[in-house]
Amino acid sequence: MSTPANIVVLGGGGFLGSKLVAALLAKGETYGRPIARIVSADLLAPTASDPKVEGVAVDITDAAAVKALLAEADVIYHLAAVVSGQAEAEFDIGLQVNLMGTLNVLEGARASGRTPRVVYTSSIAVFGGEIPSPVEDHYQLNPQTSYGAQKAAGELLVTDYSRKGFIDGVGLRLPTITIRPGKPNKAASSFMSSIFREPLQGQTANCPADENFPIWHSSGRTVIKNLVHAGDVAAADLGMNRCFALPGRTDTVKDMIAAMTKVAGPEPATRITWNEEPAITPIIDGWRPVQRINPAKALALGFTRDDSFEDNVRYFLEDDIQPGGAA
Amino acid sequence: MSTPANIVVLGGGGFLGSKLVAALLAKGETYGRPIARIVSADLLAPTASDPKVEGVAVDITDAAAVKALLAEADVIYHLAAVVSGQAEAEFDIGLQVNLMGTLNVLEGARASGRTPRVVYTSSIAVFGGEIPSPVEDHYQLNPQTSYGAQKAAGELLVTDYSRKGFIDGVGLRLPTITIRPGKPNKAASSFMSSIFREPLQGQTANCPADENFPIWHSSGRTVIKNLVHAGDVAAADLGMNRCFALPGRTDTVKDMIAAMTKVAGPEPATRITWNEEPAITPIIDGWRPVQRINPAKALALGFTRDDSFEDNVRYFLEDDIQPGGAA
Repeated sequence: MSTPANIVVLGGGGFLGSKLVAALLAKGETYGRPIARIVSADLLAPTASDPKVEGVAVDITDAAAVKALLAEADVIYHLAAVVSGQAEAEFDIGLQVNLMGTLNVLEGARASGRTPRVVYTSSIAVFGGEIPSPVEDHYQLNPQTSYGAQKAAGELLVTDYSRKGFIDGVGLRLPTITIRPGKPNKAASSFMSSIFREPLQGQTANCPADENFPIWHSSGRTVIKNLVHAGDVAAADLGMNRCFALPGRTDTVKDMIAAMTKVAGPEPATRITWNEEPAITPIIDGWRPVQRINPAKALALGFTRDDSFEDNVRYFLEDDIQPGGAA
Repeated sequence: MSTPANIVVLGGGGFLGSKLVAALLAKGETYGRPIARIVSADLLAPTASDPKVEGVAVDITDAAAVKALLAEADVIYHLAAVVSGQAEAEFDIGLQVNLMGTLNVLEGARASGRTPRVVYTSSIAVFGGEIPSPVEDHYQLNPQTSYGAQKAAGELLVTDYSRKGFIDGVGLRLPTITIRPGKPNKAASSFMSSIFREPLQGQTANCPADENFPIWHSSGRTVIKNLVHAGDVAAADLGMNRCFALPGRTDTVKDMIAAMTKVAGPEPATRITWNEEPAITPIIDGWRPVQRINPAKALALGFTRDDSFEDNVRYFLEDDIQPGGAA
């Protein structure tokens, strides 16, 4: 009935991007159409393990290359970004990749003349500053990082390009992902995964927050499910703001540790140390109000959240712990 | 005591820009410093009637020219923009002038190394879409025009460049200006001035709204006073969002006509016709929620509003009606 659809995943080489490609392949359709082909693009061409997938190298700051890449795309996932730590330390690179790169994606999608569905990954980093808690869908974006400011500016463009009919956009503010696989990084939020990930693998990790600190979070598995769903949501249901917070859960550090203990026994929790970190503790203190969010719009649109952090611990152990023990 | 300050007014040739230059000259100081020099810049060099003022031609989309212009500026007023009607009809020009032009101003200000005060004029066009009424300072920007989207993206950059210490920014969301001098234009909001301006000068004008339609507005005189004040507000008082709604008043069309009648007699009101306009009436209907705004932050910072629309009518007659009768 419907013609097969071409998908392009920008940032396909990353943690979320590679899982998203696999999930789309497994589903086999998007926006009510069978998937013809998935182009997985990143700075280095991602490896492709399926004949339907092509790995392509692209620099998102190269407008002509992005335009060529998107010329026949029906659904575009834009996950490519410089993360918050780097965007703060290297302002110009963040601006070029996160804001100008997004503009290149929107212009490329517009130039195709296909009005493609564009799924844009934003972040709860757009929230901050002068905002009451819990955060409602109609509250302001007052980011306190350059990453958040660039993502928020991109949101405005996604909604405006959609209103103009240049694209059919959806922007999702991703929660913190728990338990993120991989290594600790320099993000102030790194502890939100590392206090579980490292102890579950026999290593120690420090928690710079108190045990009552609330964390707005989602499992990677649920975020992937929601990204796939974002390809399917009907444009007519999206309303006048195409960008909104994905569902998540608020759990305190204490409750999350208790959940880990239920799933994996008492040992891991003993490997957490509790030292304030002068570079991090004041920053995360400012985050308390935005760790409670009412994602009413996303829930009404059929996006989902985890039932419990216990599930997240299980997902991590199933999905991300390699047989050799490295996440 | 303090060294004299250089001011640059971008958009100095416009209605507000030229009045602002005159008001700054009359005050003689800004940010606690005497004014050394005012560069009034626009696409065509504005005429300068005071030895302290220099009219300069600049294209705001020319990054190098903007950078050179701002190299020694201590206070920058950024009023240059493509207005809403044009930004909607000519999307690319709007994007280049309103968003990229603003980025050129911010980058030029940053490159100067002087952390200048940058006063950025935004608009209540940033409000719209999914928003409760009255609009509070912490509500989202959900613009429903490209002009509004570009202005809102600029706001995020003004706050982020300020947070990074590149500039010392203030962004003001201007109300509709009543009574705007000049001619009717194609903006859907044009009637908000023309139903007073034309009748006060013996001509007819049509009102496409019902008499209970609310208008969030300010006199030009008060907006100029607030722009001057924005040059003086202490950075430490501005909080975590540098951009906020200027004070205004909400009056219904009916009450505004009554005020005109009090000041100018019953004749002008008889020159208003009341026909719905299919191209305009549906648009302005969507504006009702954003015509009621609580400008709490601006009031706390010492910005002001008009006491009554009667004053606005008097200001218009005093400031803008030329002896020959043309506004």
